[in-house]
Amino acid sequence: MFELAIYLESKRQIVNRYLETCLSGAALPGRLMEAMAYSLMAGGKRLRPILCLAGAEAVGGTAEEALPAAGALEMIHTYSLIHDDLPAMDNDDLRRGKPTCHIAFDEATAILAGDALLTMAFEILSTGNRTHADTLETWLTVVDRIARAAGGRGMVEGQMRDIAAENAELSLDDLARLHALKTGALIQASVCSGALLGGGSTEQIENLEAYARNIGFAFQVKDDVLNVEGDPALLGKNVGTDELRHKSTFPSIMGLEKSKSFAKELIEAAIAALDQFGHRADPLRAIANYIIERKR
Amino acid sequence: MFELAIYLESKRQIVNRYLETCLSGAALPGRLMEAMAYSLMAGGKRLRPILCLAGAEAVGGTAEEALPAAGALEMIHTYSLIHDDLPAMDNDDLRRGKPTCHIAFDEATAILAGDALLTMAFEILSTGNRTHADTLETWLTVVDRIARAAGGRGMVEGQMRDIAAENAELSLDDLARLHALKTGALIQASVCSGALLGGGSTEQIENLEAYARNIGFAFQVKDDVLNVEGDPALLGKNVGTDELRHKSTFPSIMGLEKSKSFAKELIEAAIAALDQFGHRADPLRAIANYIIERKR
Repeated sequence: MFELAIYLESKRQIVNRYLETCLSGAALPGRLMEAMAYSLMAGGKRLRPILCLAGAEAVGGTAEEALPAAGALEMIHTYSLIHDDLPAMDNDDLRRGKPTCHIAFDEATAILAGDALLTMAFEILSTGNRTHADTLETWLTVVDRIARAAGGRGMVEGQMRDIAAENAELSLDDLARLHALKTGALIQASVCSGALLGGGSTEQIENLEAYARNIGFAFQVKDDVLNVEGDPALLGKNVGTDELRHKSTFPSIMGLEKSKSFAKELIEAAIAALDQFGHRADPLRAIANYIIERKR
Repeated sequence: MFELAIYLESKRQIVNRYLETCLSGAALPGRLMEAMAYSLMAGGKRLRPILCLAGAEAVGGTAEEALPAAGALEMIHTYSLIHDDLPAMDNDDLRRGKPTCHIAFDEATAILAGDALLTMAFEILSTGNRTHADTLETWLTVVDRIARAAGGRGMVEGQMRDIAAENAELSLDDLARLHALKTGALIQASVCSGALLGGGSTEQIENLEAYARNIGFAFQVKDDVLNVEGDPALLGKNVGTDELRHKSTFPSIMGLEKSKSFAKELIEAAIAALDQFGHRADPLRAIANYIIERKR
């Protein structure tokens, strides 16, 4: 019987240890490194790195092979949160139950800590695990894949659209596209980079892409639901903020109950895409269920 | 007889054409891409990419082999200018004779355009010129080298120290260290990544590191000198700003004339490091002289 809580906790520890090792090598001691560590080690769920490790395991690889990619994905995710929280963007003062980086430090330091985390991600990707020559091509493919997902055709463009969407009425299609860019692309890159590094076949990667697309979508629908009916104490951030900002969300467009059943359908589709993987994909199945059952 | 102006102009055209090709593939059409293009194509000197191409040529390689690295270096340089100009940092409204990115667009867009340019640099580095398997290792080394130079032990840390240095009295050593991080590291990475991709030997790379360290240092001394006695019309930015901000500079610590002769000594040392390279290093020699003779 697969126990998700144990799996998540053991993977979180592996990821946290790895991130701590990276940090000590990636910046000189001082305020910049303090700010990077403050946000990177703030107790995030580590969803993206765990998806990456689970992606490697699903195709018969090991978590070790994918660890640098997992670490890089969490660095990129953290940098994006730091920049998104800035006064010029979402102007949030609370994240994971703690003051956001620009509140705990200052704006300039927060911008630079984000820049340094993004840069560190690519340093880690280029130095990690070069065990044999035949994996070099795969590593370059992974760098490319993660960079595309994070950049101007992915996450950054998604944040642009998210800002533009404040006080705007979005259609369901536009909202779905916004989130596919803002969060979906990096979640997809997480699962797929793990599967690439674990030696997955083209067919396996395609199935995992379908899985990741569906859980990424469901993740955002659930996020919107939590912003309506979540518990701020569990979430570590304020709720009701989307409505305050007149943001189009899945609940605002399709209603709260319909949003919940839609998220459930997406998770069913995600799990269906794992049919061929057998027990090796148990973690990915359990994570899919966790995404809609989570309270934070 | 080597003609620097012709060399620079031909290389600038190659770099500009390459950057334009990259841009069209790296972001979706819209405001984000406009802001990226606005800053990236604003008529910079292209010093870093040209140093990269010249580094490849100095060791007997071709400019083509190093072009993706050259493009990536200019993207990283441009992102750093966009973020440094932000209100939370240097708060500059003029750059290369045009309104800075956050003035021409807005702060959120400028932050995101910088983020997307930094990310695009690594996308370009991972997809560029994979002609044969034996160069993959070199490409990963180049990604690592550039990421280190740009990140928390390089350029970003340099900008942190630059901000902390406002209204502070720095020693000559501290000022030199600040600039070695803020501009020196990336200039060194420019020459060396070109030389690595051009197939340079360890000894050649070491000599080019010495060359680059000296011109990088001289470049900053000259920048400080231009901030005292330069022509705002030629520079495309305001002068006298260092004194206004009570910044420690080479002229403020060692005097204007001493700064000029110091820059000249550094350039002589840079050129001496090129002794073994013969005519292939003529561009690097001419660029060294250009660095202290430039008016902008």
